[in-house]
Amino acid sequence: MKSFIEYSPNSDFPIENLPYGVFTSPKNVEKHIGVAIGEWILDLNVVSHLFNGPLLKDKQHVFKEEKLNAFMGLTRPHWIEARKTIQSLLDVSNTTLQNDSQLRERAFIKQREAKMHVPAEIGDYSDFYSSIHHATNVGIMFRGKENALPSNWKHIPIGYHGRCSSIVISGTPITRPYGQTLPVDGAEPHFGPCRLMDFELEMACFVGGPPTKVGERVIAKEAEDRIFGFVLMNDWSARDIQKWEYVPLGPFTAKNLGTSISPWIVTIEALRPYIVDNYPQDITPFPYLRHDDKFNFDIKLEVDLKPESSPVATTISRSNYRFLYWTVKQQLAQQTITGCNLRPGDLLGSGTISGDTSDSYGSMLELSWKGTKPLRLLNSEERKFLQDGDTVILRGYCIDENGVRIGFGNCEGKLLPALPIQE
Amino acid sequence: MKSFIEYSPNSDFPIENLPYGVFTSPKNVEKHIGVAIGEWILDLNVVSHLFNGPLLKDKQHVFKEEKLNAFMGLTRPHWIEARKTIQSLLDVSNTTLQNDSQLRERAFIKQREAKMHVPAEIGDYSDFYSSIHHATNVGIMFRGKENALPSNWKHIPIGYHGRCSSIVISGTPITRPYGQTLPVDGAEPHFGPCRLMDFELEMACFVGGPPTKVGERVIAKEAEDRIFGFVLMNDWSARDIQKWEYVPLGPFTAKNLGTSISPWIVTIEALRPYIVDNYPQDITPFPYLRHDDKFNFDIKLEVDLKPESSPVATTISRSNYRFLYWTVKQQLAQQTITGCNLRPGDLLGSGTISGDTSDSYGSMLELSWKGTKPLRLLNSEERKFLQDGDTVILRGYCIDENGVRIGFGNCEGKLLPALPIQE
Ligand SMILES: [Ca+2]
Ligand SMILES: [Ca+2]
Ligand SMILES: [Mg+2]
Ligand SMILES: [Mg+2]
Ligand code: NI
Repeated sequence: MKSFIEYSPNSDFPIENLPYGVFTSPKNVEKHIGVAIGEWILDLNVVSHLFNGPLLKDKQHVFKEEKLNAFMGLTRPHWIEARKTIQSLLDVSNTTLQNDSQLRERAFIKQREAKMHVPAEIGDYSDFYSSIHHATNVGIMFRGKENALPSNWKHIPIGYHGRCSSIVISGTPITRPYGQTLPVDGAEPHFGPCRLMDFELEMACFVGGPPTKVGERVIAKEAEDRIFGFVLMNDWSARDIQKWEYVPLGPFTAKNLGTSISPWIVTIEALRPYIVDNYPQDITPFPYLRHDDKFNFDIKLEVDLKPESSPVATTISRSNYRFLYWTVKQQLAQQTITGCNLRPGDLLGSGTISGDTSDSYGSMLELSWKGTKPLRLLNSEERKFLQDGDTVILRGYCIDENGVRIGFGNCEGKLLPALPIQE
Repeated sequence: MKSFIEYSPNSDFPIENLPYGVFTSPKNVEKHIGVAIGEWILDLNVVSHLFNGPLLKDKQHVFKEEKLNAFMGLTRPHWIEARKTIQSLLDVSNTTLQNDSQLRERAFIKQREAKMHVPAEIGDYSDFYSSIHHATNVGIMFRGKENALPSNWKHIPIGYHGRCSSIVISGTPITRPYGQTLPVDGAEPHFGPCRLMDFELEMACFVGGPPTKVGERVIAKEAEDRIFGFVLMNDWSARDIQKWEYVPLGPFTAKNLGTSISPWIVTIEALRPYIVDNYPQDITPFPYLRHDDKFNFDIKLEVDLKPESSPVATTISRSNYRFLYWTVKQQLAQQTITGCNLRPGDLLGSGTISGDTSDSYGSMLELSWKGTKPLRLLNSEERKFLQDGDTVILRGYCIDENGVRIGFGNCEGKLLPALPIQE
């Protein structure tokens, strides 16, 4: 495949990718749905009339919306037809768009001139805990080596419901929160700025397909048509606040201060060439969690930390989506097993994705082993947890055996100092 | 105050109440905003042109919406003006509506002919754990008398994020879920229908006011203008599933199977005459949680259980909102302390409201003391937990010293048998 739009061979957005996003631009303050191609965005609002396939010709309105929910709420055959149409419109052999200079002028916007937005109305957001290395590391640190993994962990893809309102798009700064902590076990709690601010390297899945009904289940074998695509996610976490609040009902204010996602949703269709074996599960899960097909992805993940004092970012972790023990199909089956209904646009976080070596961990908590092994940055500064002014940048990309590369763009955010509280 | 609409003295909806809801009716399939008065609904869509006060004359469109979010997103002065306008329109001395037989015909719908709907788009739903008797009871049952209350409990209004998609309106049946449980500690988990199905007697607060920004806090002293009103809530809970899944990230599938709310939102203005002393707090909380004014409410709460085999319901609990240790202002301050933003329409559950006597507990778990003390119903059946076909009915009402009574209507739901799973 070759597009008439030119891009470098290591672009995140070749014609094989075609991720969806929502943007505004100087010439258009209204939100439009677009597709990334090289350094450009193809504005689907402007070319909606060209979706003339049998499934979409009566559904062109979904490309005129300000959010992706209506498009997500269609079915996989619709998504596949949309992808084929876009690939064809961008193909070097197709003149429809290529040779219509007026339409072309209106239909393409430079990514660097656009402002990206959260691409869907997220009705519900859940976050899982599906990396066995992450769960084991946290277990060793807080409960000791003997009981590292909770006894339910290999039976249940553990998850919890998160906060939708504070999901923000890459580039949005995050403010260090105030909150309660317990600096000394058994002593009095303390109130003040978080001292153990952390990131979590995650990916998140946008749910697609028509809404299900309350009481309906989606078992793992039937989950595929519910999975629209993936973004990178940074689940900013206030570790000291989390530790004091999370018993018995789970993380709450330690996690609702802001969750960053990357703007481009990479679809399952684009990710198919990068499917790899599922992570071996040594306890056979209950049938509702079983699926025989491979649904794990070789997505290389990197975390950069750029301190305010330096223009140079240090890559502090190299991990991979494939380290997840539970697949996203299993996560979705768990989400719905008691009859919880889904809506298109729901977001499922993977949980922190840590590899099995100390340079592949997905949080400062693990990378600095609870602050006992500070990281050294390229400018010689040290880090146990995040400092004010630090920018955290997540990246993700896939390369197949023929060298075809697709990427997720960046998920980045800068940590601002705490705002003093007026009381 | 006296309305030209007649109603019985023990109606939940006298002119002093005027709760808001969203309904459809045989003559109108479109959702309209309405106010309950006696056995009628005043259709605000039809009378929106009569909101001619200084604040609302340019905002009449909020009464034409299909959800209450736009109205909730105004300010307390707007809500007060709306209440005055409605009270005046319904007053026996006002002829505008009373004597306009055509308008009157269009503006009033019998409640029994209407279908009620979830009254707002709930962007986020949190549930708290603010009843000291409930938290103590659960603690004694699961951790023993010595460590009944978690050590953070009197410092933090503990809460967790819940599932928005499965919030349903009173009258919607709930299906017994399948899920994983651990029948014997240390043995293998089991998969099948929930065996310990429970209700939770709660009230929930709808958040109002303009949206706040990510990073912004609403401390307890400033929380009042964010509190629009209350509904009854039944947080259906699968106890056996909850017990096996909730460590370490909190309740997930045990609670996302369905949460019922009553349809009429009773506003703070209507509740003001029933304000009582706050629950005494023996540990002074941090300043962000402090407020000097009374913001507790004498709302009498009752739970009826009606088995399928009998037309007779048994009142199995009599509790009161005033038993909550933490006020809703404190809950809201906790929700936002780390910078979590609010949107009008957000829902905050109180947590199960248990009194201090065994006939005032807010769940079967407590009423039957973990199944050790079965309840006897009026038809002589016994209950430890809910059985298929049981209908749970929550009621709430207030009576002041002059006998003025306002109520919340019912929050009810019938438990249907589990749907066998196809695997
Ligand atoms: Ca996480
Ligand atoms: Ca609850
Ligand atoms: Mg977060
Ligand atoms: Mg619930
Ligand atoms: Ni939500």
